[in-house]
Amino acid sequence: MERTTVGVIGAGRIGRMHTENLIHSVPEAFVKAVSSPHLDEDWAEALAIPVRSVDNAAVLGDPEIEAVIITASSGSHAELIRQAAAAGKHAFCEKPVAFEPEIIEDVLNAAQRAGIKLQVGFNRRSDPSLLDLMEAVREGTVGEVQTVRVTNRDPEVPPIDFVKRSGGLFFDFVIHDFDTVRFLSNSEIVEVYAVGAVLIDPEIGAAGDIDTAVVTLKLASGALAVIDNSRQAVYGYDQRFEVFGSAGSVAVANTTPSTRVVSTTGGVVTRTPHGGFVSRYREAFVDELRAFLGAVRGDRPVVAGAEDALAAVRAARAARQSYLEQRPVRLEAGSQDAAKETV
Amino acid sequence: MERTTVGVIGAGRIGRMHTENLIHSVPEAFVKAVSSPHLDEDWAEALAIPVRSVDNAAVLGDPEIEAVIITASSGSHAELIRQAAAAGKHAFCEKPVAFEPEIIEDVLNAAQRAGIKLQVGFNRRSDPSLLDLMEAVREGTVGEVQTVRVTNRDPEVPPIDFVKRSGGLFFDFVIHDFDTVRFLSNSEIVEVYAVGAVLIDPEIGAAGDIDTAVVTLKLASGALAVIDNSRQAVYGYDQRFEVFGSAGSVAVANTTPSTRVVSTTGGVVTRTPHGGFVSRYREAFVDELRAFLGAVRGDRPVVAGAEDALAAVRAARAARQSYLEQRPVRLEAGSQDAAKETV
Amino acid sequence: MERTTVGVIGAGRIGRMHTENLIHSVPEAFVKAVSSPHLDEDWAEALAIPVRSVDNAAVLGDPEIEAVIITASSGSHAELIRQAAAAGKHAFCEKPVAFEPEIIEDVLNAAQRAGIKLQVGFNRRSDPSLLDLMEAVREGTVGEVQTVRVTNRDPEVPPIDFVKRSGGLFFDFVIHDFDTVRFLSNSEIVEVYAVGAVLIDPEIGAAGDIDTAVVTLKLASGALAVIDNSRQAVYGYDQRFEVFGSAGSVAVANTTPSTRVVSTTGGVVTRTPHGGFVSRYREAFVDELRAFLGAVRGDRPVVAGAEDALAAVRAARAARQSYLEQRPVRLEAGSQDAAKETV
Amino acid sequence: MERTTVGVIGAGRIGRMHTENLIHSVPEAFVKAVSSPHLDEDWAEALAIPVRSVDNAAVLGDPEIEAVIITASSGSHAELIRQAAAAGKHAFCEKPVAFEPEIIEDVLNAAQRAGIKLQVGFNRRSDPSLLDLMEAVREGTVGEVQTVRVTNRDPEVPPIDFVKRSGGLFFDFVIHDFDTVRFLSNSEIVEVYAVGAVLIDPEIGAAGDIDTAVVTLKLASGALAVIDNSRQAVYGYDQRFEVFGSAGSVAVANTTPSTRVVSTTGGVVTRTPHGGFVSRYREAFVDELRAFLGAVRGDRPVVAGAEDALAAVRAARAARQSYLEQRPVRLEAGSQDAAKETV
Repeated sequence: MERTTVGVIGAGRIGRMHTENLIHSVPEAFVKAVSSPHLDEDWAEALAIPVRSVDNAAVLGDPEIEAVIITASSGSHAELIRQAAAAGKHAFCEKPVAFEPEIIEDVLNAAQRAGIKLQVGFNRRSDPSLLDLMEAVREGTVGEVQTVRVTNRDPEVPPIDFVKRSGGLFFDFVIHDFDTVRFLSNSEIVEVYAVGAVLIDPEIGAAGDIDTAVVTLKLASGALAVIDNSRQAVYGYDQRFEVFGSAGSVAVANTTPSTRVVSTTGGVVTRTPHGGFVSRYREAFVDELRAFLGAVRGDRPVVAGAEDALAAVRAARAARQSYLEQRPVRLEAGSQDAAKETV
Repeated sequence: MERTTVGVIGAGRIGRMHTENLIHSVPEAFVKAVSSPHLDEDWAEALAIPVRSVDNAAVLGDPEIEAVIITASSGSHAELIRQAAAAGKHAFCEKPVAFEPEIIEDVLNAAQRAGIKLQVGFNRRSDPSLLDLMEAVREGTVGEVQTVRVTNRDPEVPPIDFVKRSGGLFFDFVIHDFDTVRFLSNSEIVEVYAVGAVLIDPEIGAAGDIDTAVVTLKLASGALAVIDNSRQAVYGYDQRFEVFGSAGSVAVANTTPSTRVVSTTGGVVTRTPHGGFVSRYREAFVDELRAFLGAVRGDRPVVAGAEDALAAVRAARAARQSYLEQRPVRLEAGSQDAAKETV
Repeated sequence: MERTTVGVIGAGRIGRMHTENLIHSVPEAFVKAVSSPHLDEDWAEALAIPVRSVDNAAVLGDPEIEAVIITASSGSHAELIRQAAAAGKHAFCEKPVAFEPEIIEDVLNAAQRAGIKLQVGFNRRSDPSLLDLMEAVREGTVGEVQTVRVTNRDPEVPPIDFVKRSGGLFFDFVIHDFDTVRFLSNSEIVEVYAVGAVLIDPEIGAAGDIDTAVVTLKLASGALAVIDNSRQAVYGYDQRFEVFGSAGSVAVANTTPSTRVVSTTGGVVTRTPHGGFVSRYREAFVDELRAFLGAVRGDRPVVAGAEDALAAVRAARAARQSYLEQRPVRLEAGSQDAAKETV
Repeated sequence: MERTTVGVIGAGRIGRMHTENLIHSVPEAFVKAVSSPHLDEDWAEALAIPVRSVDNAAVLGDPEIEAVIITASSGSHAELIRQAAAAGKHAFCEKPVAFEPEIIEDVLNAAQRAGIKLQVGFNRRSDPSLLDLMEAVREGTVGEVQTVRVTNRDPEVPPIDFVKRSGGLFFDFVIHDFDTVRFLSNSEIVEVYAVGAVLIDPEIGAAGDIDTAVVTLKLASGALAVIDNSRQAVYGYDQRFEVFGSAGSVAVANTTPSTRVVSTTGGVVTRTPHGGFVSRYREAFVDELRAFLGAVRGDRPVVAGAEDALAAVRAARAARQSYLEQRPVRLEAGSQDAAKETV
């Protein structure tokens, strides 16, 4: 098997996870280089990565590197994609590409001009259970899609510093759900109504954000969708999905680390869901990289492109505006005059 | 055991069900009389009901009858309650009491002046699983309530004639969910946003109604709620509920007529949910009558009173207005200027 | 509907349950009389049973009574069936008919000579979930039956006085499972191997009985079966069944009083199974009586006859012998030389 | 991290799986060499294994190799362990070590004399769900263990050639369950009663083997255990376990490749269990290797040693004898005079 030579830019929590996945579970990849301003040398050396640098140029300037994995700080994503495109390197970029539609459009154009493959880290699209759900939808098992439901609840409130620079709940967290609704319904979001509240942590409110939300969507197909979110489900990372249609329903239940069932006088107890996205979407995180490298080699399509990032960001902007103005927002309007405040 | 002498007014589908429940499963009741303009004499005779009449006066005028079960046509409910109050008879009335808040208020006043017990047929409040859910909420198992979710999907589209006189989806169907959200959250609905669509049967649209809806609610406590509805879940009567809070979640799953599990090459197959409300809420239909008779005898509170009917109708009116005007509607506003069209 | 006039002999716990079921839930029956040496007059009067007596002759001698429900003390069952047969009354008899095959054969002959219907209280045969399982078996869903599994665990140890006069675990408790295996497999038991132990309560051992058992069966069809038993599953009445065959498996899971699901940091908790046979087999207890009355009227077959009681007792005797002699026992042998000790 | 240099002997289906797991998922290992008389050169080269040979000496004679993974043909396992011991190399050996207790004892002695770590491939001991079950048992959640239940059913009949050289159902298949019962109960097997049948494939019978079995065990603790087996569960690899005790029950349900739930008029359908041991025990296969390498480095205990292989083989011999002689067999007797026929 011919391996694709890869460089990783950014080695924070997600960057390290992707790097380890590439090395341990993606035989199609050879990780030649990793760069990060705060690189943990011991970690990189233990993984036997040949090139280790605090300078991204060590990755972007290496002619052997065919593809880059961009997991640097969110604010630098768009510029790094542009640089990768300029260097003729394919790019996998963690979400968000950017919070502004114009920037994403610019990045999309740059990638197209350069002829590089660009994939965005919408990991749900690579989850085995969700792919299984989609197979049923495509086979017509549920008939015409009428309602899509997504429950997305994090196991614990992120550090308040993260909240402040995250772009707000809709851009940091619900953005996955906007993409998932598009993916599950195979239809575009045309209108958004979002209600939100600070019910978990007043500090989140003080930071100008919310921690609880319910978002209603109208889709181009005529179907409806509803997303409910929380920053803190104390019992674990709650990820549930349902597509309901004229011939039935297909859903994905939570996954658990074990199928243990304990029966005592206190009840019949099964395990709580996985504790976070790393374990819940473990297979998805590997498969999205394999798909990306497949796209690089030309035999698989990109799982999620910049146009998907664009659609999700437009929905997030509409949701923020809807929340702030307390009215439903059409997506066209949302993409033009969305408010600027953090939410 | 001293039995309460009861009369039933209205012997359509629901009326016959209540009557049979009273006779077979409510030992506290003695059904002395039944009246209905279209009374099935054979049915009533087989049940050995002493007084059988096409005239409601046979029930309302009988001094031995202490309590009446009102299951006549919807349009006559309010007037029958007034007559029961005038006759000093306690009344259990199927929903809807009325579609107009003013009428419900008037009925409520009449009942209070007459000193009769008045219970409304919000059967969810008597369901063993929902009562079990509520026990967990009351015990603080989920902490502070943050989000309430209700899925209410009928197994099949009702006859179009029924749809036309039903008051529309929000008044006929979602009204149960408005009440359930109030019950589960122990909080009042303050704002409603409703989206709806005709995705199942164009005839429903032609009748000025919708068959699919998603309703978002803000509650006085600050919590959020979301209801999703369909007139046709082909796999059965889909009734799911969840209360999510700071300390966890408590949900009620669908019930099935059997716990059979078939494993073949085609999958692991369990039974679909019950086929309709009669079997799904079988125990609730019995228990709500026992509770009503308990209230009549003075040792139990009324499960759902006219003030609950009033609150649910106000929410339904707000939902209809929200749907028609495509904007969130505050409940105070909703109760005053709600639109008149059927939906 | 013409009702069958019924008398109940024996009004202990089970007798009162059957009587109340007949009155509240079996419209085909009119309970004219109840007799019991320790009759609770208040209970019988509240149910408005016309004839209440401490003398069984009040039932057996009443020419209007067409059918009797025998729930007197176990030792009197066979003699009461003989008396019912002599009086020309159909009989429903709680298990056990008797512990000795010869007596059951004699009773069977008496019933046949008298031309009465005789049904035995093997309630599993009337359970909706088990009937549903059997429908799948009959439809060929699992193909040829290869293995049958039964888990039967009581929620708590019975009073030691009951244990002493119960006939022992195999005759009192596992007897249901012998019948269920025959029912589920549609095949006869030809060999039994039983291991048992006193693991729960030493008093049970002191009484000459066991509290835990595993029984392996060979069936005439060539299929195998296995039963595991316990006198005490602290989490509830554990009733699970599986028929496994060439085309798949069909199982019945435990039923619960509610579908509540609580998710907290402690786990995802559902309700324990029903607390005992009264609630677990509530529908079965009603349906077996309706089936019996259907047989009396001639339009339904008897659900379980004396020949089924005979087969189950033969298996129980073989199991006891197997346990005592620590070897597998063929059923022919078992029916002749089974040991006499209590187990 | 210092890596242990490993060689693999045998590269059939299981050997290749272990090798790939070592390379992709066991960072503690460096696979220097692989040997097999039928080595697939392309496969080994693609994995970049430096030394590839048809001669086991290339592994056993390499002084750099500290540990060997023995996955050669079953008949050579014992001799290869002896050779590894002679060469001072730690050994992980797939089951069976041997079918004769004397040989296993000899191997055990050889390993002890040489001071090597010897681990046997009883993969269930490394399964996350079973480890989770065991944690509950150890914490006392179920109290005193009273009954252990194991269901082990293969998804499809193995090739008849494999059946012929497999040692028979008890040695090839049920041997896992004997070990699992010991593991779950923390007690020794003292008596075995086995019934078996040819219900799936007459060719298996013609080969002197059986395809269906139920095995009852008495344990030294006084607890009972029961195992049911089939060579063919058409719906997938059925692996269920339960430990029942004085304070409750803990069970492990089947795992599935997806949590998809499809609801249509045909039922509520979830995925069948995994299709075979490779996917069902994927994590266990990795973790047993990591545990072995941990033992080699001295910081973890061996998961299953030769004494566990010995105990399981003694139980398998007793089961075979019990099946052939149609009587329960004490394990001491079983280890001495077990019959020689294949079963």
